[in-house]
Amino acid sequence: MADRQARKNVSQRASGPALWASVGARVRDRERKRDAVILTAARAFRERGYHNTSLDDIASDLKVTKPTVYHYVENKEQLLFECFRAGLKLIMDGIDEQKESSATGRDRLAAVVTRYAEALTSEFGWCMVQAENQDLSPAMSRKVKSLKSEIDQGLRSLIRAGVTDGSIRPCDEKMTAFAIAGGLNWIAHWYRADDKLDAAQIAQRFIELFELGLRPR
Amino acid sequence: MADRQARKNVSQRASGPALWASVGARVRDRERKRDAVILTAARAFRERGYHNTSLDDIASDLKVTKPTVYHYVENKEQLLFECFRAGLKLIMDGIDEQKESSATGRDRLAAVVTRYAEALTSEFGWCMVQAENQDLSPAMSRKVKSLKSEIDQGLRSLIRAGVTDGSIRPCDEKMTAFAIAGGLNWIAHWYRADDKLDAAQIAQRFIELFELGLRPR
Repeated sequence: MADRQARKNVSQRASGPALWASVGARVRDRERKRDAVILTAARAFRERGYHNTSLDDIASDLKVTKPTVYHYVENKEQLLFECFRAGLKLIMDGIDEQKESSATGRDRLAAVVTRYAEALTSEFGWCMVQAENQDLSPAMSRKVKSLKSEIDQGLRSLIRAGVTDGSIRPCDEKMTAFAIAGGLNWIAHWYRADDKLDAAQIAQRFIELFELGLRPR
Repeated sequence: MADRQARKNVSQRASGPALWASVGARVRDRERKRDAVILTAARAFRERGYHNTSLDDIASDLKVTKPTVYHYVENKEQLLFECFRAGLKLIMDGIDEQKESSATGRDRLAAVVTRYAEALTSEFGWCMVQAENQDLSPAMSRKVKSLKSEIDQGLRSLIRAGVTDGSIRPCDEKMTAFAIAGGLNWIAHWYRADDKLDAAQIAQRFIELFELGLRPR
C-alpha cells in the first residue's frame, strides 16, 4: 500500500502539469537559443562567406563562448546545414499548408511561389543556395540533396495537380519546376534588404510571368 | 638610292602578305593555345572546385609546365575570370546577332534565351555562375559585375523592344529579366552532360513557360 502510494507520487512528479510546464519552458528556452545560434550563423555566412567564418566568430557575434555554441551544434558544417534546413522549412511549410486547400493547382503553386520568395529574401537565403557549394562531406551533401529533392517534388506535384484540374496547360513538369525554382533561387544572388520591392511584390511579378507569360493574351 | 631601296625592302618585309600570314598564324596559334588553357581550367574548376584547383593541376591536365600556363594568364583569378568571360561571350554574341534582326522583341528574346541555355550547358557554365562566389579581389569583382550587368541590360532592352512592338505584354522589365536569367543561370546547378535533354530542348521548354505562361489560353 505504501509502495503503491510511493509509485503514485513518483508518477505524479514525473507527469504532473507543474513539472511538464517547467520541462516545456526549458525545451522552449533551448529551442529559442538554438534558433538564435542558427540565425546568427546564417547572417555571418552570408556576410563573410562560409569558409571565412569560424565558430569563434559566431560565438563572438552572439556574445557567448565557443563551448556554448557546441552545446547546440556539433560543428560548422552542421550549422550550415541547419541554416539551409531553416530556409527550406519555410518553403516546405508553404507546400504543407496547400495540402489542405481546395484551390486549383495553379493557385496553390502561386501561394508556394510567394512563400518561396519569402524564404529566399530571408536571412537564410544565402545558405539555401550556397550550402551545396561548400565542400560538404558526402553524408551532408546527401542530406542537402534529399531536402532539395523534396521541394522539387512538391513543386512538380502542384504543377501536375494543375494540369489535372485544367488550371495549368500541359507542360514538361520537370523543366517547368526547374525554371520556376531557378528564377526563385536566383533571388538570393541579387536581393538586398533595402531593395525597393519586398518579397511579396517580387513574388507577384514572378507569378505574373509564370502564369501569364510574355505573349499578350 | 641604295638607302631608299633598303627602306623599301624593310617595308616589304614588314608588310608583305607572306610575313602577315606568318604573324597571323602565330597569333592564331597563340589564341588556340590560350583557349585550350581556359577550357581546361573551366573543366578543372567545375570538377574540383576553384579553391581545390591549382595552376599546377591545370598545367598537369594540359601536359605542360606551370610557366607555360603563366605565359597565357597572370594568375588563377585571371584564369577564372577568362572562363567566366568566355561563357558570357556566348550570350553577348547572341545578343549582338539580334541587333541586326527585324524580328519582334519576343522572338529576339527567345533566340537569346536559346544561346543563353547553350552557354550555361557548356564547359563554362559552372564558372559563369560560380565566379562571383570565389572571394575575388575587389577589382576582379567589379569586372565580373560589369559584364553581368551588360547581359542584364541586353535582356531588358529586348523585353522593352517587345513591349514597344506589341509582342510582349507590358511588364516589370527588371523583374522579368531577373526571373528569366535566374531560371537560365540555375541550369548550371542541375545540368549534366548526359541529361536526356540537350541545350536546345531545355531552351524550348523554358521559352514555352516564359512566352505562354502556365494558364491555358
